[in-house]
Amino acid sequence: MTDRLSLLQSNSSTETPAAPAQPAADAVARYALGLGDDALVLAQRLGEWISNAPELEEDVALGNIGLDLLGHARGFLAYAGSAWGKTEDDLAYFRDEPEFRSRWLFELPNGQSGLDFGFTILRQLVASLYFGALYRRLAASADPSLAAIAAKAVKEVAYHAEHATLWTLRLGLGTDESHGRMTRALADLWPFVGELFDADPATAGLDGIAVSPESLRDEVLAGATAVLEDAGLAAPQVPFARGGGREGWHSEQFGRLLGEMQVLARAHPGATW
Amino acid sequence: MTDRLSLLQSNSSTETPAAPAQPAADAVARYALGLGDDALVLAQRLGEWISNAPELEEDVALGNIGLDLLGHARGFLAYAGSAWGKTEDDLAYFRDEPEFRSRWLFELPNGQSGLDFGFTILRQLVASLYFGALYRRLAASADPSLAAIAAKAVKEVAYHAEHATLWTLRLGLGTDESHGRMTRALADLWPFVGELFDADPATAGLDGIAVSPESLRDEVLAGATAVLEDAGLAAPQVPFARGGGREGWHSEQFGRLLGEMQVLARAHPGATW
Repeated sequence: MTDRLSLLQSNSSTETPAAPAQPAADAVARYALGLGDDALVLAQRLGEWISNAPELEEDVALGNIGLDLLGHARGFLAYAGSAWGKTEDDLAYFRDEPEFRSRWLFELPNGQSGLDFGFTILRQLVASLYFGALYRRLAASADPSLAAIAAKAVKEVAYHAEHATLWTLRLGLGTDESHGRMTRALADLWPFVGELFDADPATAGLDGIAVSPESLRDEVLAGATAVLEDAGLAAPQVPFARGGGREGWHSEQFGRLLGEMQVLARAHPGATW
Repeated sequence: MTDRLSLLQSNSSTETPAAPAQPAADAVARYALGLGDDALVLAQRLGEWISNAPELEEDVALGNIGLDLLGHARGFLAYAGSAWGKTEDDLAYFRDEPEFRSRWLFELPNGQSGLDFGFTILRQLVASLYFGALYRRLAASADPSLAAIAAKAVKEVAYHAEHATLWTLRLGLGTDESHGRMTRALADLWPFVGELFDADPATAGLDGIAVSPESLRDEVLAGATAVLEDAGLAAPQVPFARGGGREGWHSEQFGRLLGEMQVLARAHPGATW
């Protein structure tokens, strides 16, 4: 029993984000919150695919990608919370909708009418390229905690981008049916891509620490467009971007996503599990 | 584009079970089917916890455990299918309820009224100890494909058992509330434990290849009882075991689990995704 209890203390069986060297400054925490929310909300959406993918292999792949994103979210949220005496769980489970800072791209359902694999893959393509460009820059941040979280995530999102690229090619170049589905999914998705590059009010005053979203636009769009072209698909022209997540505005589907994510923790607040 | 297409051919981004050196004999395939179904059905149940655990850390842990089990299921089902010209997906998505061979312990919902973390942990404790004892013996099977799948899985289920042990101790020794919940969960779970050790008709004629379920009873029950005692809990006395999964009998909740798992693949049979 003594051995087991000492194991219990160290709780080495799951990887917890390293405690930050020092608490985040308030402004840095507000910035980290948006990054954490983006990853958290997309992880929640990917979770809906567990045991629902078209092939068992994809269950495993999408599941692993979702868990990677959850890991990134935990890193950012734990660091953000260090500024305010809050835990990652406090931030994930006990904030209300207007307090979430995630961009709309991440909260969109996995298809307009039920689970759509093509839509999910296209979102992963854009999201993974976006995360990659962001984290590569953030790894050079003057804030050592942000830099460490980003440096660790870079390798994982590069794999996610490869996975989404392969599937985009396979579906775009596949049957007429799969090509048609991808074209429709792209039309649904694209109006929400531009928001990723809208100014983030939380970056104000964080020169050298935060990454300007505008600075990511060319790289991400060029990367996505190249894959789409190889897959025989074309990004539609969109007059302006839809969104507003960094200001706390969310799409009508967000409340339900949040409800599903938070119901259990809220039913037993502070429970010693 | 050439580079990407060659990547597409190799599809190295997710780990697919190695093709068996030679197709399974029919009798071996029938045995492997039961083992694969046990892991598949429990993975499906654990999937319900993704984004619903009481802590973000547990989302990740239960998700990873579920994905490990899905990997084991894929190995057994791919091997079983090799006897009959079927893929793992054929077997997972296009069999009907009476063709599934999983024991009842694995298909039980995650609690009698909604998601119950304590019940889930207790099932993981028993299941992980059972898988561990089974796979350690199966790793010495005269069938090299079964031996290889089992040898790979042994390390993972040992970690799963450690995870379940730590949580059983934490909950059993925690608050009066958590102790009471564990006691109730144990009463719900225990009637289904005995079935794990009932004779499996598929082992007939497979001496040296298959593992007799009866031979696992003492080790698994002694291991589980020791953890429960350390946690201040006691396994109830149960007059006889409930079940019948290896003969194709299932509990009333199984049909719904199967429906959720199969709906997407059946909606698009043979789809080129």
